Formats: sequence, structure tokens, C-alpha cells
Amino acid sequence: MSLSPLNPALARTFAPPVMEAARWVKGIDFPADKPLINVAQAAPVDPPPEALRRVVAEAALNNPDAHLYGPDLGLPELRAEVAATTAAHYGGTVSADQVAITAGCNEAFCAVMATLAGPGDEVIVPTPWYFNHKMWLDMTGVSTVALPTGPDMIPDPEHAAALMSERTRALVLISPNNPSGAEYPAEVVRALADLCRARGVALILDETYRDFDSRSGRPHDLFTDPDWSDTLIHLYSFSKAYRLTGHRVGAIVASRERLSEVEKFIDTVTICPNQLGQIAALWGMRNLSQWVAGERAELLSRRAAMIEGFGALDGWKMLGCGGYFAYVEHPAAEGSADFARRLVREANVLCLPGTMFMPADDPRGSRQLRIAYANVDVPRIAELMTRLAAVRP
Amino acid sequence: MSLSPLNPALARTFAPPVMEAARWVKGIDFPADKPLINVAQAAPVDPPPEALRRVVAEAALNNPDAHLYGPDLGLPELRAEVAATTAAHYGGTVSADQVAITAGCNEAFCAVMATLAGPGDEVIVPTPWYFNHKMWLDMTGVSTVALPTGPDMIPDPEHAAALMSERTRALVLISPNNPSGAEYPAEVVRALADLCRARGVALILDETYRDFDSRSGRPHDLFTDPDWSDTLIHLYSFSKAYRLTGHRVGAIVASRERLSEVEKFIDTVTICPNQLGQIAALWGMRNLSQWVAGERAELLSRRAAMIEGFGALDGWKMLGCGGYFAYVEHPAAEGSADFARRLVREANVLCLPGTMFMPADDPRGSRQLRIAYANVDVPRIAELMTRLAAVRP
Repeated sequence: MSLSPLNPALARTFAPPVMEAARWVKGIDFPADKPLINVAQAAPVDPPPEALRRVVAEAALNNPDAHLYGPDLGLPELRAEVAATTAAHYGGTVSADQVAITAGCNEAFCAVMATLAGPGDEVIVPTPWYFNHKMWLDMTGVSTVALPTGPDMIPDPEHAAALMSERTRALVLISPNNPSGAEYPAEVVRALADLCRARGVALILDETYRDFDSRSGRPHDLFTDPDWSDTLIHLYSFSKAYRLTGHRVGAIVASRERLSEVEKFIDTVTICPNQLGQIAALWGMRNLSQWVAGERAELLSRRAAMIEGFGALDGWKMLGCGGYFAYVEHPAAEGSADFARRLVREANVLCLPGTMFMPADDPRGSRQLRIAYANVDVPRIAELMTRLAAVRP
Repeated sequence: MSLSPLNPALARTFAPPVMEAARWVKGIDFPADKPLINVAQAAPVDPPPEALRRVVAEAALNNPDAHLYGPDLGLPELRAEVAATTAAHYGGTVSADQVAITAGCNEAFCAVMATLAGPGDEVIVPTPWYFNHKMWLDMTGVSTVALPTGPDMIPDPEHAAALMSERTRALVLISPNNPSGAEYPAEVVRALADLCRARGVALILDETYRDFDSRSGRPHDLFTDPDWSDTLIHLYSFSKAYRLTGHRVGAIVASRERLSEVEKFIDTVTICPNQLGQIAALWGMRNLSQWVAGERAELLSRRAAMIEGFGALDGWKMLGCGGYFAYVEHPAAEGSADFARRLVREANVLCLPGTMFMPADDPRGSRQLRIAYANVDVPRIAELMTRLAAVRP
């Protein structure tokens, strides 16, 4: 059946990759002695700590406001907490009215991009990219200008400069990166921010995975610049650190002027973030820093196991590893889209092919795979390596 | 400070009207013997029944899935419940895969509109309109074609036909209407649906306020047509019936083909609806029909008081009354935007001027006001009438 009317921009936008991959395993009965190792999606599989769940339950029962509309840009206490946390983590000064709470970090991206770019405008995105970023740009008629990263998966400021045109409205960075796992060096982030400022282009910096950065201390110095808000738009998610994916809570840190434009978008699309998710995020920020530190330590031990494991695996090459992700080159004869499906059949492993993170004409995609290893403990990482070693290239 | 870069389509979009009105009362200390009567926003002010709150609290505490990502288009049980409820309420056949759950009914509108229309396309919207609909069309570059309603606030099918062009992608109806309160007669809805089908245009029918319709039985027969899904896109909100505004849960009923396009939008913007809100909506649909019937009876008594009250008020004229809203002509010398501000000062009443629901060049707006009376009980409606009667025209 043909669908009419149909907006061609949405028709051209590709379907959600994670759901496509879910179809590869649908109906397959994996045996108990070789269960599926699902490294396709970047999401916690366990609920948040019981103390946080009790706070949400208590609010649902006894806080009438938890069921009613709140301010478009989020609960004032949560905005203030994000401001204070951001200032403490990165240095510099951030005030509550420079923070907006959103229905997840994807909405944060869509909202800020709606304030920046429309049809015919250009946005520079390092490749491999996060597919939902590409999808939003496609459906709103914004041209995505791919900035291929080097062998270290780090974008090159000179290359970015060469791609900028009169139509460039923003450069989008994710660090630690999804999908590559690369942790961008502070001096690269600074150089890219300086470039953006010089060209009057916004820098969107998505640090959804910052709580699991393997480096200690602040990951960059952008907020220490008193004028940070003329260029920087910072995105954060509560989903990973506090296991709140099902609550949909994210945040934007940006200039007040930008946020009054963001407010129009939020008011129109979701009106306000949901209240219980915000209450959970606020309590998490105030009370779970020790717990998150423990989560990070566990994730870093998994990261070490991934680096060691792939280092010993014949024909495979690790390109990046950090946050929730490893990004690797595979040794198989066929392209990654076919190989990923063969891994389901022969190794009972589900991961996403590099082609899902890349323009179709970039040959790297067919040689690469993303491994979202955050939910796989060290013994199962060893099992993953055994299975990959047994698959014929 | 000028904001650069700035998407001109968003810059041109007006700021959220409800928040603008909130600024009119900010900092004013209304006396205890004449408190503010706030009839500006269409939102419950009380939380949902305790039994529902207990269900949400229990899920927060003991259902791990309530904290994790769910399917993009919503919980299967809730989709099935909406399908069954829709079929029972309107007649006809609706299946679970023709239902999508969204982060509120505003997102439902944005998602379906994204599948229908892009820059340069036209959408016909009866005036007065719901401002968030207009805001989405503005920010996405879609032209809004105003269809002024008659003195009865009902859109005329022949007028709609005359406004359709090659670029028309959809006609948007809300019944009971926001802001006019008009309950659209079944035969008008049918005639507009037939027109849309004949022209290959989508009919978006938003029935957010259907649970408070003063008429009994099904409000139209569109779903009894076995081919309803080739034209009709139906929207619903759980916010009003179950007092869940703070949870952000709405629904779309449409063709499977349309929903696979909607899925791209949801995946990109909010990924999935939040889980606790969906659990609340599902329990409400299954258990609160008697309670909602009581809510409706109370609202209808307030509606009767509004009709009687304005009927006796010198110089005022009621144009429509239903759902949460009365829409009235005022007798004041000045325009409605000034008069609404004077009502704050002289009557301690906050309502929205017709200019917020109308193109600037439509002279009706300056003579009209929207009164969101749902939260005002019958004694306070009498007090509202006393105060309005005392204001000099």
C-alpha cells in the first residue's frame, strides 16, 4: 500500500537501526549453553538502585505535583543541580537559567538543532556518527557534512575547518564517542571550539557517557572560558549514569538566549519533561555519586578486558574503546552488514555493523563493527572472545 | 545579545502563550478574600486517584522494566487497550499495530505532521486554532491555511474544499475543540472526512477532550468505515481523563504504514514513551471508566453553570462551550490582549485573549477570550460571573 500524503524528507530518513538489528534475532531460540550475547544497544539492563526506586515510589504516592505539568524547561531544583554539577565537573560558571531539562538527550539534540539549522543549512558531523543525529538532520532537511575521523577515531580540526562553508551552522561532537568509544583529547576539543567561535558556528558537545570516561579530572576546559555560552551547547543524559532510560530525562547547558528558543520547541513537542523522571534524576545527582563511581570502576575493568581480548584476537583490530563502546575492524571476507548477521547465526552474538554509522559511500563502514560492551561482565567478555575466535573470517 | 547561528523558522515562531500569560500574574499578591481565578490553562490541578498512584508507586519499586527502554511505539498491552477502547467507543475495527503511544498528545501531532508535510506544503487549520499546532507548522516551514469557523465555531466543509490546493497535505480538527469548546456534529466530521479522502488529504482528528463530550454515544462514525485508515489519523491524550499531565502520555491511531514512518520520528526525538506514565495510562483505561464518568458529570454541571452565567451577563456572548473550554465575546472597548491584562488587575481573573488563537489579521481575535473553566467549581463560576459583571466594559 502506498502512503499518501507522505513527507519525502521523512520517507528518505532510514529506519531505526537498533530495531532493524532486533529483527535479526527475533524468533531465534538460542540454546541455554550458548545464549545470545547482545552487544547491539547502549542501555543498562538492570534497574536503578532500590533507594532511588523508593524515592520515585514515594513521589508517585504522596507528591501531587509529580503528576501535573511542570515548567517547560524543567524543575528549578534539577536545573540548579545540573548547573552546580557542571561547574564543579568542568570548572567555570554555569547558572540554573543556562540549563534546560528535556525528555531524554535525543530530544535535547533535536531541540538545539531546531534552533540552529533548517533546510539548506549544513552541519558537520564526524564519522562514524550516532544514527539518531543523522536521522534528525535528514528529516528536517539539513545537510550532514561528514567529517571522517582518522585511524585514532579523533576528528581533525584542520579537516573540520576545510569543510566549513557559509551554510555551516554547527559542529557535533560526542565524547566519549558513540559509536567509536574514542575519548576526545582536551586540546582537540579546545581547537575545534576555537574554530567554531572564529567561524560563528555552534559547537554541540554531547557527553552522555562522561561518567564512564577512563581519564580522571575534567575532560576539557571549555567551560572555564567566561564566554563559553557564545559557542558551546552542552548535552547530557541521566539515562546511563543512573539507569533511567525508561524515564526519558536529559539536559542542555547553553546560553539563556538559546534556551528561550529551545523553550518554544519543548513547549510544542513534549510541553515539559515528565516529573517522576526528573525527581529520580535529581535524587541520583545528589546521592549516587559514590555508586556511579563504582559503576565506572566496573565498566573500566570491562574496558580493560575488551582491549586485552581484541589485542589477542587474530585478524581483528580495535579502533576505539571507551564509554559503553568498542569499535573494531573485523577480519571477515564479507561486508559488515552480512558479517553481523552471520555472527548471530554462528556465534550467537548481536552487534551493529559500521555501515549503520556511516554514509553509504564510505568504504570503512563495511569493515567495522560496534560492540556495546557495557552490559557484558568480564567472564562473558572472555566468552565473547572465544566465540569470535571460532568464527571463520 | 544577538543569537548566532539562529534558524529563522524557529525565530519567527511565537513564544508559548501560556507562559506569556503566566508572566502577567507573576509577583502579584492576590488577596485572600479575592484570590486569582486562573482559567488560562487546560490542565487538571489535582493528582490522579490514590489507587492509580499506588499502581505507579508499586511499579517504580518492583517492576525493573519500568526503568528501562521500552518499544519505540509503546507498551504492547497499552497499544492493544487503546485499540480495543477505540473500537468500542467509535465502532469499527482497530488493531494494536494501528496504535502508537507518544510522549503526550503534542508529540503525537508533531510526529504525524512530520510524516505528512514539509517546507512549502500547506495544512488547513480551523480558526481559532490550538497554538501549539500553529507553532509546529511554523517551525517546520509548513504553511498554515486558516479556515475561519462560522458564528457556531464549526468549520464549513465547502469553505474547506475551496481552500484546498495541490500543496494541501492535511486538515486538522479538534473536537471538543480547544479553544472554542465546540463539539463538532457527526455529519460535519463525516463531510470533512469525505472531502479529505476525495482530495487525497489526511484528516487529523484530535479528541483529547472526548471523555467530557456533553453528547452521549459515538461522536462520529469515521471508524465504522473499513477503509478509515487511508484518511483518518486519530489523536488522544491520557492527560485530561486520568490527570496525567505530568507523565506525558498520548496516542495515535493510524495506518500501519503511517506508524512505521512515525516510528522514525519517535526513535529520533524521544526514543520511547516513559514507562511509568504508560503503566498509569493502562491501569486508568482498565479501571477508571466509572471514575471518569463521575468527572464528566461534574464537568457538565460546570458547563451548564457557564452557559447560564454568560447568558445572564450583560454585553458578553458565549460562542462555544464544551470539553474544558468556553469561548466568549467580551464587551470591553479595548482589544482582548489589553482587556485580558485588565481582568488580571481589576477582577483577579487570568484567561487568554482570542489573539493567541488567531492570525494577526483576523479581527475576531481582539473581541474574544478563552475561559478554561474545567478547574472551577460551580460556586466559583458564580463568583467569576460576579467579578466579570463588575468590570467596566
